[in-house]
Amino acid sequence: MPWLKVTYQINSSPADIAARAEAVSVEQSVEMPVPAIRHQHVLDEILGKVDGVEQVGENLYNAHIRLSEITTGYEPAQLINVLFGNSSLQETVQLLDAEFPQSLLDHFPGPKFGIEGLRKLVDGYNRPLTCTALKPQGISADDLGKSAYTFAQAGIDFIKDDHGIANQSYSTVAERIKSCHAAVQRANRETGQKTYYVPNLCGSPKQLIEYARIVREEGVQCVMIAPMLVGMATFAEVYHEHLNVPVLGHPAFAGAARISPIFLFGKLFRLFGCDSVIYPNYGGRFSYSKQQCLDLANTARGPWASIKPAFPVPAGGMTVNRVQEMIDFYGNDTMLLIGGGLLSAGDALLERSREFVNKVMGR
Amino acid sequence: MPWLKVTYQINSSPADIAARAEAVSVEQSVEMPVPAIRHQHVLDEILGKVDGVEQVGENLYNAHIRLSEITTGYEPAQLINVLFGNSSLQETVQLLDAEFPQSLLDHFPGPKFGIEGLRKLVDGYNRPLTCTALKPQGISADDLGKSAYTFAQAGIDFIKDDHGIANQSYSTVAERIKSCHAAVQRANRETGQKTYYVPNLCGSPKQLIEYARIVREEGVQCVMIAPMLVGMATFAEVYHEHLNVPVLGHPAFAGAARISPIFLFGKLFRLFGCDSVIYPNYGGRFSYSKQQCLDLANTARGPWASIKPAFPVPAGGMTVNRVQEMIDFYGNDTMLLIGGGLLSAGDALLERSREFVNKVMGR
Repeated sequence: MPWLKVTYQINSSPADIAARAEAVSVEQSVEMPVPAIRHQHVLDEILGKVDGVEQVGENLYNAHIRLSEITTGYEPAQLINVLFGNSSLQETVQLLDAEFPQSLLDHFPGPKFGIEGLRKLVDGYNRPLTCTALKPQGISADDLGKSAYTFAQAGIDFIKDDHGIANQSYSTVAERIKSCHAAVQRANRETGQKTYYVPNLCGSPKQLIEYARIVREEGVQCVMIAPMLVGMATFAEVYHEHLNVPVLGHPAFAGAARISPIFLFGKLFRLFGCDSVIYPNYGGRFSYSKQQCLDLANTARGPWASIKPAFPVPAGGMTVNRVQEMIDFYGNDTMLLIGGGLLSAGDALLERSREFVNKVMGR
Repeated sequence: MPWLKVTYQINSSPADIAARAEAVSVEQSVEMPVPAIRHQHVLDEILGKVDGVEQVGENLYNAHIRLSEITTGYEPAQLINVLFGNSSLQETVQLLDAEFPQSLLDHFPGPKFGIEGLRKLVDGYNRPLTCTALKPQGISADDLGKSAYTFAQAGIDFIKDDHGIANQSYSTVAERIKSCHAAVQRANRETGQKTYYVPNLCGSPKQLIEYARIVREEGVQCVMIAPMLVGMATFAEVYHEHLNVPVLGHPAFAGAARISPIFLFGKLFRLFGCDSVIYPNYGGRFSYSKQQCLDLANTARGPWASIKPAFPVPAGGMTVNRVQEMIDFYGNDTMLLIGGGLLSAGDALLERSREFVNKVMGR
């Protein structure tokens, strides 16, 4: 069985690190109490394995963990999930690196153009390429086109939109391509140079596919996308199925962990349509405080203009024993989620599940 | 003009906080030197405004910043960009909260079902709802179905897939819906209860749309999606256009900032198809060290199995004066990106752009 070799950096006391590393290997694979696993092949081929731990600083360790390739489903979103789904929520864990077996890489072709293709596009060898950005957002496509013309005259290889320039009313993607792409082509005809306008594509899949159509029709030769903004799997699909030009990857939103969870889960997830939001409960495997959890729940389900309330779903290491505590703490407008805490009952699964239900029912 | 009122928490010395707050307001709006902006309406209606700063701890401040609604393009991906695109990359800045004007909310309908809809589904009022998870991944859809049947017998309202269960070979979405949904329906017929199987949907847009079709055809009444995993804009589109059932939002990957940037930009972005990766350069507006930047660049462009190399694009506060330094440091296989540093030349834009090009050309 091929495995991903993943390195996590973990803040931990020397006494705890072995258990912490084990916990990550479980969290990123089966996410349930190991003794409750009854299938030998799951223990052998699915459960993550700790290959070793090395100290790299005071209370700081690199844990080398093997994760099963087959769990990725060979698809970007699930690959990210396997690498850093839940552990991303544990503040003391950092995803440091990963090595992928060739059998996994075979499913991800990577860049279609790369350095070679970009060099060829601008006929620029044995030197760095150049790039600039059209700014500020808020001005018209015509005005951006004027700047683009100037940059192209100067011979800057790639003239990209500022990453804040999306498809706003003051300059749509279609208008910008008409104006800036044409301006750069005009400059190229005049100078004999090969410079390119690089529109920024940002939006939902349908919008991105429409922008890709315009890109093809107008002969635009390079685009910019921020994978974390549009979603890495969406980016991958749009790139591989709808574009045949190189892309500049922008890092916008790639440092998103430091969003307050109250805001991210309580407001943003709800705003985009979540009828309920699962989040790490206090006193479980994660690090949110009681107050944060209550604020999150109250934000998700509180009154907010015309937006319907969403169910808070505290989760993560919950047990039947804590049901009453949870109800007392959160009140009725809560969905309680217990996973491993039920499965760990083994043969008594039905009974413990009923116990859970009964506790909630007040029976 | 309507504005978003956004609160960022900033680590800063008392002496610097005013400038730091200004910097965030610029970063999240025009992202260029303000004196170089020539359009009065951009200064008035697009540039972010600092409404105030309050100290909340030692060297810790909440900065209240207004950002222009129109810059969001009324679309999820760009809304996230406006809220926390580049500032997410600054370790001392945390997105704390945001208030949205009604005119913005009008474009985001939010949950279609919410608490009321979920309660109605299970006919469960004046109590919390219950939820559990099917585990472990690695076992067959039939075996998951057996657990689902047990949970349903127990009357747990929602029986969801573990978030690690996606569309792997050992249990596809289609197989799971056939097995688990049927098992739960069978239990319901036997018990007279209303419990639901909740499949986890994870993948690229095309896959999600296909899963949504199966969900509709099979009469599944609730699904789970991790918005950060599939991309929040993709999630929003799939939810609003392809699903008519409530969704459980899962937080997987929502703490992703602690991914090493070397890995995220240098490997993952490349793996998914980036021909070049823009990243915050050392000595600019961001906090990466020289060594991190070089490691990132060498990772992005280094040999890696069958994957083509990607251009590293160091950026963020770069100037023409630093071109030679950048070339000396990174070598030729680099794309240099200078945005504001050119625009700040004002009337001398063409000249400075040429200077940039000439420096790179070694002229």
